[in-house]
Amino acid sequence: MTQPALLGGIEAGGTKTICLIGTGPDDIRAQIQMPTRTADETIPDIVAFFRERSAELGPVARVGLASFGPIDRDPLSATWGHVLTTPKTGWAGTDFAGAVARALDVPVTFDTDVNGAALAEGLWGAAQDVADYAYLTVGTGIGGGIVANNQLVHGAMHPELGHMAVPRDPETDPFEGHCPFHGDCLEGLASGPAIEARWGHPAYDLSADHPAWAMEAQYLSVLAANLILMLSTRRILFGGGVMARNSLFAALRAQTKERLKGYLTVSPFDGDLTDVIMPPGLGKRAGPLGALALAIKANA
Amino acid sequence: MTQPALLGGIEAGGTKTICLIGTGPDDIRAQIQMPTRTADETIPDIVAFFRERSAELGPVARVGLASFGPIDRDPLSATWGHVLTTPKTGWAGTDFAGAVARALDVPVTFDTDVNGAALAEGLWGAAQDVADYAYLTVGTGIGGGIVANNQLVHGAMHPELGHMAVPRDPETDPFEGHCPFHGDCLEGLASGPAIEARWGHPAYDLSADHPAWAMEAQYLSVLAANLILMLSTRRILFGGGVMARNSLFAALRAQTKERLKGYLTVSPFDGDLTDVIMPPGLGKRAGPLGALALAIKANA
Repeated sequence: MTQPALLGGIEAGGTKTICLIGTGPDDIRAQIQMPTRTADETIPDIVAFFRERSAELGPVARVGLASFGPIDRDPLSATWGHVLTTPKTGWAGTDFAGAVARALDVPVTFDTDVNGAALAEGLWGAAQDVADYAYLTVGTGIGGGIVANNQLVHGAMHPELGHMAVPRDPETDPFEGHCPFHGDCLEGLASGPAIEARWGHPAYDLSADHPAWAMEAQYLSVLAANLILMLSTRRILFGGGVMARNSLFAALRAQTKERLKGYLTVSPFDGDLTDVIMPPGLGKRAGPLGALALAIKANA
Repeated sequence: MTQPALLGGIEAGGTKTICLIGTGPDDIRAQIQMPTRTADETIPDIVAFFRERSAELGPVARVGLASFGPIDRDPLSATWGHVLTTPKTGWAGTDFAGAVARALDVPVTFDTDVNGAALAEGLWGAAQDVADYAYLTVGTGIGGGIVANNQLVHGAMHPELGHMAVPRDPETDPFEGHCPFHGDCLEGLASGPAIEARWGHPAYDLSADHPAWAMEAQYLSVLAANLILMLSTRRILFGGGVMARNSLFAALRAQTKERLKGYLTVSPFDGDLTDVIMPPGLGKRAGPLGALALAIKANA
C-alpha cells in the first residue's frame, strides 16, 4: 500500500501565520507559528520553514495556502495568487501564492482561510455528514465559506458575507457601525472590534449577563436565518474568537428560530436548531487544517 | 442521428398552469394554459393534456414539474413530490409529482418553478456563459433559484430567499410589511401585494416618477448586494411582474453599486453592474421552459 503523499499547509491570518507538514489531522509532522508581518518579511520565513523541514521529512507534493482576503483565487485569472486590496501593510497586490509556488517549486492551491476551514470541517470535522453547509468565523472580522453540493461556492471571487446588510433599530442600537466601507453591515455591528467600539470593552471582558451578548446573538441570527432562507443550508458552523463565549450558541439558536417564525416546516429547520447551528468540530485547528484540506482537495 | 427525446413540462404557478411538450425552446409541439384550481381539479386536466397529445405526438420520455412551493424535492425523502404547507386551497400535502408520474407512467423531475427557470436561463437564456448565477422573480411573491458551480443549490429543501431579513428605516418607510410570517422581510416589503398594500395602488398603476419605484429599487438592491457578498454570484436575473417596469433596472443597479461602497474591486463587480443585474433572457418563457429544462437536466 502506498503512503499518502506528504502535503504542506499555510494558514495566513491577519495577525499570525501557521505552517504545517503532514497528511491529515492525526499525522502532523511539523508545525510552526509566526506573526504575520509584511509580505516581504513573512514569505521568506514561510519558505524557509518548508525548505528546512522538507530536507528532513521529504518533499511535499502540494501546498494549500489559506489566506486572509480578499484574494484572487481564480486559476484562470492573470492575477491568480494575489492578495487584492487590503488595509494590511505591505500586502496589497502581493503575488502570495505565486511566490510560494516558485520558491518551493510545488503546485499551490490558493483560497481563503475560511474556505479552507470549510473544507476541513467537511473532511474531518462537524460537517462530514452533510453536502450543504457553511463555516463562519466571528472575530476581528466576520467571514465565511459556503459548501453547496459538496463544492465550495466561489462565484466570481469568493464570499464576503461579513459585509451583508442587516436590519438595525437605532432606538435599541444607536451604534452606527465600525466597517470602514459600509458602517453598519454585519461585520460593522457584530465583529470583535465592533463589540469593543460599541461597549468600550473587548468581548472577552464582558460578563455573561452583559446586554452585548443578546445583541450579538440577534445580529448573528440574521446571518444564520438568511443563510437558511437563501441556501437552505443544512449546517452552520460558527467559529472565531467571539464565539469562544459558549453561551452565545443557545441564544443564537433561539433567536434564529424566532426569526424564521415557523415558516420552514421541514427537517432540520423544524426543531431547536441544535443540529444546524454549532461550533466547528475541529475547534481552533479548523484554520491550519483548512490549509492542508486545500492541498488534499485541490481544485475543490 | 437519433432524434432528441420528446419531453414534457409542467409549470404550476400560483394562478395558472402551463403544460408543454417538445425538445427545447425552438421545438414546442404542444402547449396549453389553464387556471391553477385545487389539486383535485388541476391534476386530472394536466394528465388529460399529456395523454391526448402524446397519443398524437408520441410518448414523452420524462416530465419536468416546476411547481410553486414550498415543496419536497429531495429524491430520497419519503414525501418526495409533495407540496408542503401552502395557503393555496386544496394543495397542502398533495403528492403532486407522484400523481403525475403514476398517471402518465413516466419519470418526473420535481423542483420549484424558480429552480426550473434558473436552469432554463443557463441552457438557453441570459446565463449561458456563467456557472454561478441567480434567477429571481418579483411578483405575487419573491422567490429565486441559485446556481453555483453549474448546479442548482438545494440544501435541505430549496431556497426561500424572498423571506430574508432586510434593513427598513421606519422614518422613511413606516409600512410594517405584508408577510404573514415575517412582516417586513423582503417579500413583505417589496412583492407586488406589498407595493399595493403600502401605496394603495397596484405596481402597474404607479407612474414612473412615483416614489414607490425608488423604494422598490432600494429593497431589491439589498437582495442583489447580499447575493453578491454572500455568493460572489456573477449574474442576477430579475424577472416577474414587478420587473416589467423596465426603468427599475437602472435604479436597481445604481443602488446596488452604492450599497457595495466600492468594497469589491474585481470584475464583474467593479463596473456599473450592467453585466451583473439584468432581465431573464427568456422573458416570460423562462417559467414554462424551466419545466422542460428540469426534464432535460434531470437530477441537476
